[in-house]
Amino acid sequence: MKTVQKPNFRPDNLFAGRIKNVPKSFIREMLNHTGNGKQISFAGGLPDEKLIPAEGLSKAFDTALKKYGSRMFQYANSDGFHPLKKWIADRYKKKWGLEIPMDEMILTNGSQQAFDLLGKVFIEKKDKVIIEQPGYLGVIQSLQCFEPELIPVPLKPEGVDLEILQDTLEYHPVKLMHMVPNFQNPSGISYSHENKKNLAKIALQQNLLVVEDDPYGELYFEEDYETPPLKKYMGDNGILLGSFSKTLSPGMRLGWIIASREIIDKLIIAKQASDLHTNNISQMMAYEFLIENDYESHLKAIRKCYHERKEYMQQAILKYLPADVRFTDPQGGMFLWGELPEHIPAFKLVQLCMDSGVVFVPGEVFHLNGHGKNTFRLNFSKSSPEEIDQGIQIISKAIAFLNSKNKVYQV
Amino acid sequence: MKTVQKPNFRPDNLFAGRIKNVPKSFIREMLNHTGNGKQISFAGGLPDEKLIPAEGLSKAFDTALKKYGSRMFQYANSDGFHPLKKWIADRYKKKWGLEIPMDEMILTNGSQQAFDLLGKVFIEKKDKVIIEQPGYLGVIQSLQCFEPELIPVPLKPEGVDLEILQDTLEYHPVKLMHMVPNFQNPSGISYSHENKKNLAKIALQQNLLVVEDDPYGELYFEEDYETPPLKKYMGDNGILLGSFSKTLSPGMRLGWIIASREIIDKLIIAKQASDLHTNNISQMMAYEFLIENDYESHLKAIRKCYHERKEYMQQAILKYLPADVRFTDPQGGMFLWGELPEHIPAFKLVQLCMDSGVVFVPGEVFHLNGHGKNTFRLNFSKSSPEEIDQGIQIISKAIAFLNSKNKVYQV
Repeated sequence: MKTVQKPNFRPDNLFAGRIKNVPKSFIREMLNHTGNGKQISFAGGLPDEKLIPAEGLSKAFDTALKKYGSRMFQYANSDGFHPLKKWIADRYKKKWGLEIPMDEMILTNGSQQAFDLLGKVFIEKKDKVIIEQPGYLGVIQSLQCFEPELIPVPLKPEGVDLEILQDTLEYHPVKLMHMVPNFQNPSGISYSHENKKNLAKIALQQNLLVVEDDPYGELYFEEDYETPPLKKYMGDNGILLGSFSKTLSPGMRLGWIIASREIIDKLIIAKQASDLHTNNISQMMAYEFLIENDYESHLKAIRKCYHERKEYMQQAILKYLPADVRFTDPQGGMFLWGELPEHIPAFKLVQLCMDSGVVFVPGEVFHLNGHGKNTFRLNFSKSSPEEIDQGIQIISKAIAFLNSKNKVYQV
Repeated sequence: MKTVQKPNFRPDNLFAGRIKNVPKSFIREMLNHTGNGKQISFAGGLPDEKLIPAEGLSKAFDTALKKYGSRMFQYANSDGFHPLKKWIADRYKKKWGLEIPMDEMILTNGSQQAFDLLGKVFIEKKDKVIIEQPGYLGVIQSLQCFEPELIPVPLKPEGVDLEILQDTLEYHPVKLMHMVPNFQNPSGISYSHENKKNLAKIALQQNLLVVEDDPYGELYFEEDYETPPLKKYMGDNGILLGSFSKTLSPGMRLGWIIASREIIDKLIIAKQASDLHTNNISQMMAYEFLIENDYESHLKAIRKCYHERKEYMQQAILKYLPADVRFTDPQGGMFLWGELPEHIPAFKLVQLCMDSGVVFVPGEVFHLNGHGKNTFRLNFSKSSPEEIDQGIQIISKAIAFLNSKNKVYQV
C-alpha cells in the first residue's frame, strides 16, 4: 500500500551553500601560478628555507624513532603528544607566568586548523564574529565555512580601534573576535600593552570570546619588544593560538590552542571528527628537536635575519619609491603594509608587476566588501637583499608607469 | 542620535548546536582509558606495529631530505604532493584500468579528513545522507558536524540491502551515501561484484553521490578476492576514498579522495580553509618509500599475518564460546562481528570483560537510535595469537557468568 509516484526531487547542483561563500585563497592560487621560481615573491608568508633547521629536525626524527619506535607511526591521542604539550606550557610559564594545565591545550595542524575547529565548536549560521580590518585571509576563509556574519573592526597604529569595537558590541550580539596581537598579518601592526588591557576589559564586560592568534609573536626585532599575551587578562574568555610554522617548519603543520577545559573538551570532539589526531611523526620530531637544541639561539637567528631584511626593504623603498606611497613600520614579523595614492589601484599595480617578475598581494583581499583598494602587502622574510632591491625597483617602475598613464588621462 | 540602552543579548552558552550532536569517539575514549598496555585490546582498528615498515620509512625520510632539501619542511600545495598523487593514480590504472587525471584527486589527513571535507562541500543542515547499518563510527561523528539527517540502510551478507535502498530513495531526497565496500567496519562484510553493479545502477538513476570508502581493500586474505571499485561504474557520481593508514602508517595521516574535477575544485577550497595542506614530510616520505621498496611484498606480509590472526581468533571462538554466539566470516580486513543471544546486552559484556582485562566495542555505538544491542566488534589485527586465545577465554567466562545470572533471574 505505498505510492509509486516518485518526484524528481534530487537537485542538479548538490554542493552546499557554504562552499559558495568561501573564497579560494588568492595567495595560494597566486603561488601556484608563480611556482616556477623565476619570479621574485613578496606574496606569501613563507619562512626562509635557510632558517628551517632541516638538519636538526632530521636528527630529531632519528632520536624520536629510537625512543618511541613504531609508536611514532601509529595512531595517537586526539589532544596531541603530551610531552610536546608540556614543553609548550612550560615555555608560557617561564616567559609570562601563565599556568596552562594539560587539559587546557590541544595540538592542531597549524593555526589554520585551529580556526576550523573553533568554527565547528562555536559558530552557527549568521552568528556575528568580529575580525580585524584589514584581516588575515586564512581566518576569513576558514570561518566562512560556518556562515557567520563577519564584522570588520579597523586597526589603528596601537591596536584595534576600541571605540568602534565598543560601539559594535553595543549593537550586535557578537560571539567571537579574532585578532593577531603581534605584527599582524597583513598590516604589521602590533597591539600595545595598554590596548590589550582595555580590549580585555571590554571583552570581559560583554562576555565576548577573544581568539588571540599569535603565529608571529616570537619574531620581534628588538629585545625589549614583548608584551604579555592578552590571555593573561582574559581568563576563560581568552583563547590563545600558537604555531611552529614561522619558527620551525610550516610543512610539519603544528599549532596549538589554549583555552578553558570546557572549550578544549569540545575542541577534542571536533578534532576527532575532523581528522582523528595530528601527525604523530611531526609531533615527536618537533619535541625531540626542542629538547635537544638551543631553541632560543635559533629564534635569535631568525629575528636577526628578518630584521635585516625589513631594513633592506625599507631602504629600497626609501631609495626607489615615491614619498606618497606610505608604509607601516612593523616591530617584527614578516610583512610591510603599503598604501598607494588614491588614483593607483593596487590590483592594477600587482598585475603589472607580475608581468615584470615580482609578485605581492593587493590589500583588497584582506578586506570585506571591497575596501582597501589602494593598499598592498609586501613580505620580506623570503627574499634575499638582492631580490628585495630588484623587486622594489620593478614596483617603482610600475608605479611610475601608472602615474604617467594617470597624468595622460588627467590632461 | 543613537539608543544607549544595551540589551544583555550575549548567551551564557556560546557553543554551536552542531557540537552537541557529535558523539565523542567511544573507541578513542576507551583507548585513552586502556592505554596502560596491560589490557588485551580487541577494541581499536590499529595495525600491528610490527607490520609498520619503520626502518624503510626512516630511510625514505633521509632520501626525501636529500632530494627535496628544506622544501620538505616548507608550505606546500593544497591538493597534495604531485608525485605521490601520480603514484596512487598509476596503481589504480594498473590494477583496475581506472584513469585518474591529476586534477581528480586530493590528498587528505587520512580518510577521516575526507569525510570532513565532503561534509563541508556537500552537506547542509537536514540534508539526507545514507549510511550503512551497522556503520563506521568515524563517518557518523564527522558528518554530524554538518547536521544532516542520517538514514541507516542495513547490510546483508552480500552488501547493502538494495531493496531497502531503493525504497529509501523513493521517499527521500538523499544527497549522499557512504559505504565501505571491502571488509566493512564494523561488520567485516564485503559487497559482491553483483551488489556493486546494482548499487551503481540505482545510484545513477537517482543522481545519488556514493562515497566509496576503501581503507581495507588491500587487506584481502585470498588472492582471488578482489572486485573492481564501485567508482568504475559510477562516473562523476562516484567518490572513492583511500588511505595508507592500514598499509603503511596511521600516524602519518595520509589518505586521498578521487572525484570529478568539479568536486575536487570545491574540496581544495575546503582543504585550504581546514588546514592549508597535508603534512609535507609524510607525503614526501611515503612517496620515497613507495618507489624504493617492494610494496606488493609488504602488502602480502600484512595479508598473511591478519589472515592467520583471523583464523586464530575463529579457532579460539570455536573452542571457547558457546555456539549461540554467532560471527561473520570476513574475507579480509581487521574485524569480526559478533551477535550474542538476545538476553545478553553487549554493553554489559564489554563492561565485565574490561574489568577482567580485555576490551572490545559494543555494536550499539555503530548503530543510530540504539539498535544492535546484542552485537559487538572484535579486532584481530593488533593482538598476538596468545593474546587472542587469552582474550577469547576471558570473554567466554564473562558470557558464562551473564548466562548463569540470567538463569537465576529466570527461576
